[in-house]
Order: sequence, then C-alpha cells, then structure tokens
Amino acid sequence: MLGNFSYCNPTKLYFGEGSLKYLNDELSKYGEKVMLVYGGGSIKKNGIYDQVMSILKTHKKTVFEDAGVMPNPTVEKLYEGCKIAKDNSVDLILAVGGGSVCDYAKAVSVSAYCESDPWKKYYLKMEDVNNKIIPVGCVLTMVGTGSEMNGGAVITNHEQKLKIGHVFGENVFPKFSILDPKFTYTLPKYQMIAGIYDIMNHITEQYFSGEDDNTSDYIMEGLLRSLIHSSKIAMKNPEDYEARSNIMWIATWALNTLVAKGKATDWMVHMIGQSVGAFTDATHGMTLSAVSLAYYRYICPFGLSKFKRFAVNVWSVDPNGKTDEQIAAEGLSRMEEYMRGLGLVMNLTELGVTENMIDVIAEKTLIMDGGYKVLSKYEVADILKSSM
Amino acid sequence: MLGNFSYCNPTKLYFGEGSLKYLNDELSKYGEKVMLVYGGGSIKKNGIYDQVMSILKTHKKTVFEDAGVMPNPTVEKLYEGCKIAKDNSVDLILAVGGGSVCDYAKAVSVSAYCESDPWKKYYLKMEDVNNKIIPVGCVLTMVGTGSEMNGGAVITNHEQKLKIGHVFGENVFPKFSILDPKFTYTLPKYQMIAGIYDIMNHITEQYFSGEDDNTSDYIMEGLLRSLIHSSKIAMKNPEDYEARSNIMWIATWALNTLVAKGKATDWMVHMIGQSVGAFTDATHGMTLSAVSLAYYRYICPFGLSKFKRFAVNVWSVDPNGKTDEQIAAEGLSRMEEYMRGLGLVMNLTELGVTENMIDVIAEKTLIMDGGYKVLSKYEVADILKSSM
Repeated sequence: MLGNFSYCNPTKLYFGEGSLKYLNDELSKYGEKVMLVYGGGSIKKNGIYDQVMSILKTHKKTVFEDAGVMPNPTVEKLYEGCKIAKDNSVDLILAVGGGSVCDYAKAVSVSAYCESDPWKKYYLKMEDVNNKIIPVGCVLTMVGTGSEMNGGAVITNHEQKLKIGHVFGENVFPKFSILDPKFTYTLPKYQMIAGIYDIMNHITEQYFSGEDDNTSDYIMEGLLRSLIHSSKIAMKNPEDYEARSNIMWIATWALNTLVAKGKATDWMVHMIGQSVGAFTDATHGMTLSAVSLAYYRYICPFGLSKFKRFAVNVWSVDPNGKTDEQIAAEGLSRMEEYMRGLGLVMNLTELGVTENMIDVIAEKTLIMDGGYKVLSKYEVADILKSSM
Repeated sequence: MLGNFSYCNPTKLYFGEGSLKYLNDELSKYGEKVMLVYGGGSIKKNGIYDQVMSILKTHKKTVFEDAGVMPNPTVEKLYEGCKIAKDNSVDLILAVGGGSVCDYAKAVSVSAYCESDPWKKYYLKMEDVNNKIIPVGCVLTMVGTGSEMNGGAVITNHEQKLKIGHVFGENVFPKFSILDPKFTYTLPKYQMIAGIYDIMNHITEQYFSGEDDNTSDYIMEGLLRSLIHSSKIAMKNPEDYEARSNIMWIATWALNTLVAKGKATDWMVHMIGQSVGAFTDATHGMTLSAVSLAYYRYICPFGLSKFKRFAVNVWSVDPNGKTDEQIAAEGLSRMEEYMRGLGLVMNLTELGVTENMIDVIAEKTLIMDGGYKVLSKYEVADILKSSM
C-alpha cells in the first residue's frame, strides 16, 4: 500500500549541452563570496574549471577555493571546509564535480555553523539541522549518486572505520544543479561504469522491498530498462550524447526521493558496500557491484514474487513453463551477465579485501530493516565471503 | 535525443489518508485573509467543507467564499473571482475540489492584479505574468488533471467558443497540495473514469511524439501499466485504497512537467477534445475518450515504430510473427477493449455533438505541431466524423 508521505523537491535543474551558461542567472541571486569546491583537479584538465572561473569573474565574485575533495570525503576534510566557509562568511558553496564533491558541499553547508562537532551531531547521532545552512549549487561532472537533487551527504571517518550517509531535508537540497552530459565524456571508463552501477543499485535498493503493488515499482522498472538500454550504448561509445544524457537523467530520478515515496526501501547493499569502502577506500559503485549478487541471491527466497516480477518486467525473462524460483534465478543471471558485460568489479578480492577483514567489515556494517530479510552480522559475513 | 531544458517543481505535496491535518502547517505561513474556492457543493455533502472550515477557523482566518466553480470554468466566473480576490486583498487562495477548481484558482491568482483584460493577455495572447501573483494551495477531491502540481489553468469563453489552457511557470504552481485518496471515494463513477482517461491521455499525448529513445518514454510506459492495473481494480471496488492512491499519484506525475522534459509532445487529442468541450460543455475526460481512437488510428502510420512499442511494452502484445502494422493495430484494439471495459464515452453523439457542428468544431480547434502528423482542419473534421 502507498503509505503516507510528503514530497517536495525544490532543486532547480538546468539540463543539456551548454547549460553552464545558466550559472550566470543563479550567481546573481547570491552574495559576492563564493566557496568553490572540487576534487582532484580533473576539472582543470578538461577545461571546466576555467569556464566556471570565467563566469565567477564576470560576476565579480570573491572566490575561496577548496580543492582536493577525495572520492570518499573524510571527516578531517569536512572540518577544513567548515573553517574556510565560516572564516570567510561565504554566501554560496559551488560544488563542481561528482557525487562526493556535492555530498561534501552539503555536509559543509550544514556543518559550518554547527555549534558542536558535526560528525557527532549529524552522523553519529543523526540529529536535525537547527543552525544556519549555507546555500549550495552544483555543476555535475560525474553521474551516479543523485546528490545533485537530494539531501544526501556521505562522510567517512577512517579512524572509526565508519562511512555514514545523512539524508538531510529539503532545506539542504542544492538550490540549483547544472547537468551537461558532455561534462561526463572525459570520465575514465572505470568511473563511468561504477556510476552506472551505483544508479542501478539505487533503484534496486528501493525496488526490492515491500509486497506492495504501487506506482513507484512501475516507474523503477521503466528507469531500469532505460538504464540497461543506454548503458550498453555508452559502453560502446562513451560520446553517444543520447545515451549519456539518459544515464544522467536516470541517475537524478533514481535518488531524488520520488521513487521511495510511500514505500519501504532496503539499502543493505549500500550498507555492506559502505562498510567495505570504509576499510578499502574502493570506488563506491564497485563496492556495490562486488557484493550485490551474493546479497540478492541470498534474499531472493524471502521476496520471491518481486524477484520474479523483476526478471519478467526488467530482464524480459519468458516465464512460460518455469517455476517462480527458476524465473527469479534467470533474472539474476541476466543481471550478472549484464554486469560482467559492463566490466564491473564482481568480487571483493579485487578491491583489496582479505579473508581476515571480513568479520570486522561485517561488524561495522549498519543493519537496515526495510528489505525482505533483516540480516544478522553473521549473515553479512557470509555474504561477504560469498563475494570474495 | 533528450533536448535541453530546465526543471523545477516547488509544489509541496502531502499525500495519504488524513493528510488534511497538514493544512494547519501551511496556513500558518500566510496572512489572515483566505479566499476559499470550490465547485458545485459536493464538498458540503461529503463533509470536506466542514473539515476545511474548522481548520481555517482554528487559525482565525477571515474566509471569503467563492463557490460554484463549474466543470469548465468560464471567463465570466474568472472576472468575478478576480474581483473578490482584489477587493479583499486576499493572502491565499485555497482551492478545494478537482482540476477545474485548481485551474480556476491559478487563473484568479495571476489575473486579479492584471492591469488589462486577463482573458486577452493570458489566454488569447499567452503573455508572461508580470503582475502580483496570489499564492494558491489545493485540497484535491477529484483526480485527473495534475493541476495540483503544475501551472496549467484552462478557461472557457463560451461566447467566443474557445477553451484555452495557459501553462504558467513555476511561480504560479500551487505552493502546496493535499492529496487524500479517500477524498475521491464519493466521486460518481462517471467522473472517476473520466478522470482516469484524462490521466491516460495526458501520458499518451506526451508519449506519441518524437522518434527518440529517451528515459521519459520508459517512465511513461511504467505509469501507463500502473494506471491500467489500478484502474481495473478501482472499477470493481472504488474504495480500494491502494488502487485509488496509485491513480491519484499517477495523475500528479503524468502532468507535473517531468515526463515532457527534453522531448516533443503532441496534445492534439486535448485540442480536439477542448473544442468539443467549448461547444457541448461535456465532461473533459469524455471528450478525450470519444475522439482518441479515431485520432490514434489516423496518425498511427506516421509514428508506426512508437505505436508498435506502445503495443508491446504497455499492452503486452506478443509481436512474434506479426507485421509492425498488425502489432500497432493490436495495441490500439487492446486499448479500445480497456476503454470500453471502463465504461468511457466512445463517441461524440453521446456527448451531444451533431453532424452540423463538426465543421465549426474543427474550425475552432487549435492545431499543435508536436505530433507525428500536423493536421489540417479537414483532417480534424474527418477525425470528428469518425468519432460520431
């Protein structure tokens, strides 16, 4: 049954080739101090940095740069960013990059004026925001997390071996996001396919939950079919504009809160994957692909009718003359075939996980209860072992 | 190809049984003068009027009632509403009803402070809004138009025999909308199924356009499948909460701007249906059902691959051993069977159209150019004749 919910997504999106020009319209809404947040510097190589700086200069903004945001932004980096933002009383945080950069920008936006330790308040205790929030805008250069149109902000604490995502409310969503599919062309293939699997997993995490028959499930089947179709094209030709733009658009809708409305969600693949990430610093999407099939094959008997539906409606498995178990298994086999075809990492060994790490990764995994089976830590360890 | 676009939908939705309580949160954001807009009085019979008035009273609002909004709101009614809104300097227009009431509320919100004739400015000339806009909130009691989360506002001028919709920008979207599926239970079956077909046609108007392969088409196939599924259940049991809530949610997403982003759209069924409506005052959804099949069968050869896809992906037609034409025709036959099963009006005669009206209805039909075939007025007349 469609449960009760409220929905509001105030982020303004500018989508398409050349949409960076709309940064002009947005900048005029904010004060002169802009904190420019970006990652390892690829935006300097592909020219996006220069384009953004040129627009900032036209608007006579004073720019405070905060570079070097890592793929899994750390709590130490967060403290640094908060200091830059607060010391300079910045009026806008402009994130130029992928999901990690956007996540980090949002974490800084709520944490800069936090009167206690933001890691404790917003991550360990998951408290609501009751301090000043600095507005955030995003220019996306990598696709996958949906961070450009939601309140998610994942931060990693290596010392505590914790990678935690706080999903903040709509007052923390980016005020605007600029999505130019061509900005994703220069991304290495490893990052592109990791992003594609992150998108797919965002959808399946929300799909494999509940015995319901609600509209979100139908929307998600559509998103998955479109993603499978376009990702196969993008694999062959990363500069196929239609494929890359569809993937960019699907990524946004996979995790901008719509498809989760009124239904339960799972998120255990993300929980296990994030725990793996906290120990290995591996690329997020690959931690998900490495553990997904072991997880889904394990929970399949507990949500058999949904796995059967997934096989038929998403993977076009012909159900005639087969048992439900056979249909469901065939769906997961097609998914495996697709994942191998993309070139995803399919085991944890490749990500640097060793047998002696399994128990502690399992121990540090947060257990969510929205899926078809609430796992014990022992079951998590078994899934990790099956993923080696 | 996914064309360039911007997207923002700021409407806050409260969805589910009992969600009227959130009117309390929203009312506190506005001044004390509330214009309460509703239709023929069914909300007095089903108790919704009393519930709303009780909340307004709790917040000590001064209420200016504007009742009697007709199914196709007229320009004369619009002028009346503008006078009430302006004379009393209302702070909020609260629409309680279906799409017509919400449309009317938005038309008043942009027209009250319009310095020239709003019919000329916003309808005949389709100009942008450059005057004060009064905020609108909606409590939905009938499902179909999507008006609760978009900028659409259709007004009818009987003297000029024109029924025109202006799609206003996001500053005119309702600030909030309250969607309680149970509020739709008391709707007569005729109105329920007319609303269901309005939803279906909103989706097909946006689907049957372009040779593209974009994500929106996949999302729309999901929405259509969900609508077909839930509407069959609602037909048998109008008080099936899951079915009615899915239908309510699909209606919103069918026309809240998402699925049209980056693609061409058709809208000729609406143009022909609205012209029929201007002459007959028939229920909107029934004007669409009466002309749809003649229209789609006529344009099918011009968009054959999309009609084939529609047959397979929406109506589960088995394509094996059939020509594209046969597959497409079978899809439309299944659609006809579904429409007849719902009990929709399938011809114009039943709506009071006579042979001698056809030429003038065709003459008054606005021709849109986004579909698979740009129609001449003669072709419109032929479609109308085939729909008798």
